[in-house]
Amino acid sequence: MKTNTSKNLANVTVQDSFWNQQLEVVQREVIPYQWKALNDELPDTEPSHAIENFRIAAGESDGEYYGMVFQDSDVAKWLEAVAYSLHVTPDETLEKTADELIDLLGRAQQNDGYLNTYYTIKEPGKRWTNVRDNHELYCAGHLIEAAVAYYEATGKRKFVDIMARYADYINTVFGDGPGQIQGYPGHQEIELALVKFYHVTGKEDYLRLSKYFIDKRGKQPHFYEIEKERRGDSKPFWWNDDPGYSQAHLPVREQTKAVGHSVRALYMYTAIADLAKETGDDSLRETSETLWNNVTRKQMYVTAGLGSGEFGEAFTFDYDLPNDTSYTETCASIALVFWADRMLKLAKKGEYADVLERALYNGTISGMNLDGKKFFYVNPLEVSQAASRRHDHKHVKPVRQGWFGCACCPPNLARMITSLNRYLYTEDIDTLYVHQYTGSKGSFTLNGEAVTVRQETNYPWEGNVALHVNVDQPTNFKLAIRVPGWCQDAKVTINGEAISIVDDIVDGYVYIDREWKDSDLVNLVFPMEVQRIHANPHVRETAGQVALQRGPVVYCLEQVDNGENLHNIFLPSEGKLEAAFEQELLNGVVTISGEALRIVETTWSDDSLYAPVTYQKTPVQIKAVPYFAWCNREPGEMRVWLNETK
Amino acid sequence: MKTNTSKNLANVTVQDSFWNQQLEVVQREVIPYQWKALNDELPDTEPSHAIENFRIAAGESDGEYYGMVFQDSDVAKWLEAVAYSLHVTPDETLEKTADELIDLLGRAQQNDGYLNTYYTIKEPGKRWTNVRDNHELYCAGHLIEAAVAYYEATGKRKFVDIMARYADYINTVFGDGPGQIQGYPGHQEIELALVKFYHVTGKEDYLRLSKYFIDKRGKQPHFYEIEKERRGDSKPFWWNDDPGYSQAHLPVREQTKAVGHSVRALYMYTAIADLAKETGDDSLRETSETLWNNVTRKQMYVTAGLGSGEFGEAFTFDYDLPNDTSYTETCASIALVFWADRMLKLAKKGEYADVLERALYNGTISGMNLDGKKFFYVNPLEVSQAASRRHDHKHVKPVRQGWFGCACCPPNLARMITSLNRYLYTEDIDTLYVHQYTGSKGSFTLNGEAVTVRQETNYPWEGNVALHVNVDQPTNFKLAIRVPGWCQDAKVTINGEAISIVDDIVDGYVYIDREWKDSDLVNLVFPMEVQRIHANPHVRETAGQVALQRGPVVYCLEQVDNGENLHNIFLPSEGKLEAAFEQELLNGVVTISGEALRIVETTWSDDSLYAPVTYQKTPVQIKAVPYFAWCNREPGEMRVWLNETK
Repeated sequence: MKTNTSKNLANVTVQDSFWNQQLEVVQREVIPYQWKALNDELPDTEPSHAIENFRIAAGESDGEYYGMVFQDSDVAKWLEAVAYSLHVTPDETLEKTADELIDLLGRAQQNDGYLNTYYTIKEPGKRWTNVRDNHELYCAGHLIEAAVAYYEATGKRKFVDIMARYADYINTVFGDGPGQIQGYPGHQEIELALVKFYHVTGKEDYLRLSKYFIDKRGKQPHFYEIEKERRGDSKPFWWNDDPGYSQAHLPVREQTKAVGHSVRALYMYTAIADLAKETGDDSLRETSETLWNNVTRKQMYVTAGLGSGEFGEAFTFDYDLPNDTSYTETCASIALVFWADRMLKLAKKGEYADVLERALYNGTISGMNLDGKKFFYVNPLEVSQAASRRHDHKHVKPVRQGWFGCACCPPNLARMITSLNRYLYTEDIDTLYVHQYTGSKGSFTLNGEAVTVRQETNYPWEGNVALHVNVDQPTNFKLAIRVPGWCQDAKVTINGEAISIVDDIVDGYVYIDREWKDSDLVNLVFPMEVQRIHANPHVRETAGQVALQRGPVVYCLEQVDNGENLHNIFLPSEGKLEAAFEQELLNGVVTISGEALRIVETTWSDDSLYAPVTYQKTPVQIKAVPYFAWCNREPGEMRVWLNETK
Repeated sequence: MKTNTSKNLANVTVQDSFWNQQLEVVQREVIPYQWKALNDELPDTEPSHAIENFRIAAGESDGEYYGMVFQDSDVAKWLEAVAYSLHVTPDETLEKTADELIDLLGRAQQNDGYLNTYYTIKEPGKRWTNVRDNHELYCAGHLIEAAVAYYEATGKRKFVDIMARYADYINTVFGDGPGQIQGYPGHQEIELALVKFYHVTGKEDYLRLSKYFIDKRGKQPHFYEIEKERRGDSKPFWWNDDPGYSQAHLPVREQTKAVGHSVRALYMYTAIADLAKETGDDSLRETSETLWNNVTRKQMYVTAGLGSGEFGEAFTFDYDLPNDTSYTETCASIALVFWADRMLKLAKKGEYADVLERALYNGTISGMNLDGKKFFYVNPLEVSQAASRRHDHKHVKPVRQGWFGCACCPPNLARMITSLNRYLYTEDIDTLYVHQYTGSKGSFTLNGEAVTVRQETNYPWEGNVALHVNVDQPTNFKLAIRVPGWCQDAKVTINGEAISIVDDIVDGYVYIDREWKDSDLVNLVFPMEVQRIHANPHVRETAGQVALQRGPVVYCLEQVDNGENLHNIFLPSEGKLEAAFEQELLNGVVTISGEALRIVETTWSDDSLYAPVTYQKTPVQIKAVPYFAWCNREPGEMRVWLNETK
């Protein structure tokens, strides 16, 4: 086994008032709750049967397979989150539970390495007959990711060994050789998992197989057609018969716009960036940059939500960003964190870290109640209880829901939050990049010397960051500090002395190249003004509207603070907006207050629907709260984009 | 046979530059084209097979039934439009064709009077087993309406006799007696047809049967449940298992909000008003008023479009009026004309005629190209070519389509336009009501004396109307002139002398009670200012937006006049808007021009989707055209509701 190259995991510990709250919720609520779900111990909830499926596959229980065809992945996601959690907070009982579950996985594995309970139990002779729809490779990918995380967290190899046997077997099944399937998964995931597996195991086969899946995808003759014919399936594929649903409409390197199911897309884009870095393939680098630009400049909500359409939980087309009918799945924004991280590994550009930050503080954690007990799968930017009765809004829930039968988003949030330490820094030979501002402690090796950096901040509520540098002896290295894209007037001091940074910003990073001494203190000041954000005028839905952002946090109005009919509130384009930290509100958040104008509804006669009269407007105080924290009080309307007036 | 009581048909002839254009298009294009469609003579169009079905049912042709279960109704609608057209413009060849078709219907009729080709050919033993879904009574209703119209137009009784046999048979099938079906149609239509049939035949049975269907509807135990059980159907009904789809969720008199399929609803509401008038049933009168208020004050678009939701082509809920995803079917606005006409018969209130007028000049005729060759089924108030690619906009066609397989709207438009003369006047014993302003000539009997009124106007482009009254001898009667709801400052002169009308307006009508002399001339002036219309502030979608209306005509911006990205145009809340008649444009229409502000798209960097910058706006001239005439030039974006700025 290769040395663990994922130093970020081992060497950085989050110690942050904002994120430790999130982490605690995941550890206290989400992980134990999911464990009960996997074991069918939740009353009033559809059974998961996921662990029982493994017992049946292992021959240790009778019964039928039950659940979605990808039920195994729920077990994988739980194990992955547990792994990260154990790394952050050791817990003997939890580790024992995980070990026993891994043992069960081992017993459920078939002699040839195959490990999938659906086909083992339900359709034993039918493995790999519907790779387009039936998620075998997707489940394998999640299990591999979990195995990697578990090894990194605990040093235990068993899970990795199980998955190596499975991956080695898969490697014999897929390929261009005689008798092999010249195919690729219908739900991408294993591609990025195999790159991680390669990192941990050093085995080139896994990298090669990942690249095979990417290289083969979308080429003619089309695998899905061949596979359909082989299984005698003549039905058109449900998504308008378009393989773009799973980004198989074109060879990967010819894809220039994000299309189809957004989570599938983002997992693939993540793998493309991984492979571009690992293999030095410039065409893949170019593809990932082209797709990045399309997604983040033409198809992303201000909350970092992705997927404008409910049909196929999918991207639609450039600048199509409706606020009340989007899909904007929590998992898609989480996947955006993964992809942004890989783009940052490819090139140190602040825009990647900016998008990662936008996702972290908005469209990802909006998926979970502050108490970790309820979840949004869909994260729209505008909700009214009334509109959610429309059939074309049926996917838009006006309040977070309990655990779902298909529980993808909660464990995905759990793994993102428990692995946050990975996204803060990158350590090169002579440069330490500071990407995200989060209270933390990290140990690094720069130019061969040990360096620790302690970060103190009250982000995202305050823009002051202190970086305490400790070295055993004076050491030359570059500290590359990201200046957030939202920040207009960043200031940096070293040991109290201001330094000019204007000329030293390259692609969003200030490079400070000096000999660092023990206890050097770098202070960053990123002034957090309330910003009135407008969207590119090609966006139909936000013409005449404005969003509020402060630091990385996007705000919204809620009915509980502002009354109903939020569409009747008009924010003046000038005028004071005040930010204030409210300790008692929503676990402590900064709110934004100011004066707006409101159409007086009571002066309009209920007898007339249309009239040639002007509205009466009256000044009102509005209060905006962080978008991620909405719907934690009384349910009601919510709006991110506010009508604007002069 | 009873004397024809529908005097309006016989006695009023439209002679109007606006409507004669529409009529000519219907006679020149729609009626002949539909005839070809019914006979499967159109290349590149799905066959109708409607007439062939009758031949097969008559035993004169071999072959299988083909088409929708309600294919017969297409034949009925054609015959009805032909009847009105023959009344307006006699045409021997067309009448002969219609006579022959009626003969065929007679030969297809079964011995017991039954006349439905689907069940006769395809499921001979299964009549009346699925009255909820299979449209037998709906087709019967349309055939009855056609028969009534044909008799009124030609004086020929054969079609009426055929339908009397069928109606008499239906009257034996449905009822509370032993062996009868205690049910009602899943698609209302026959209720209003039976009232017409009663008028023509004088046979009380038909009125009673109509009332039976209304009285029975929605009561418990529920007919749909009984019928389902009888045919062994255990599937939930596709519309969320909700009988509200066909307004059978509650007994009719307990219904207070419009729900479900909008055309079904409106046909039923029309019948309710009919029955309220015919039977004097106050509870039905109250129901029709309550539903009228709900529809027109809470669920109607400014274009008189109805049906905010695509799912079920249905009403949604109060104040839910999205502009880009509505269904707003042409047929629903046509049905609103029918209903408004019946409400006017119940009570002479200007608001009924106002809504009728709004439907006539906006949401009905918008369904047809000016050349009568293409049709919108769905009439949204905002269209962009791009957005119509969204799956949740798939019903919103960005351009009118050719003849459809399910061709409900074109023949419905044809019958509305050919029967327009019915909606202009009502003649009471001593009062002549002038509801609509349309060049026309009418002969009436008032207080026993013959009176003719010739109306001259350039409506809807000019608000001046001349009413020339001719009498054989001086006659006392009341002339009740509707003052349009949109008109702020109406003026009336008689023989050149102004009369004060302020105190004489009752429910929107000016009553002029005098002794009329031959050649009296009444001049009406309804100043047509360009009006900035706002919607009730409960409407979410139009907050901060304004619509333009002049006279009864609602306007829109089209891309062809104003460039793309119409959402970036902001109309100042004050400032001059000029109206001008353009002879060469769109067959001659009044357009509205003025200055607006437009967001400058070119100054926004394509690299950024969101930015804390204000938009640059530049003054532009805009040009608005009548909504009904949109999409008759280059296809492109369209908007009725414009963003507004101070």
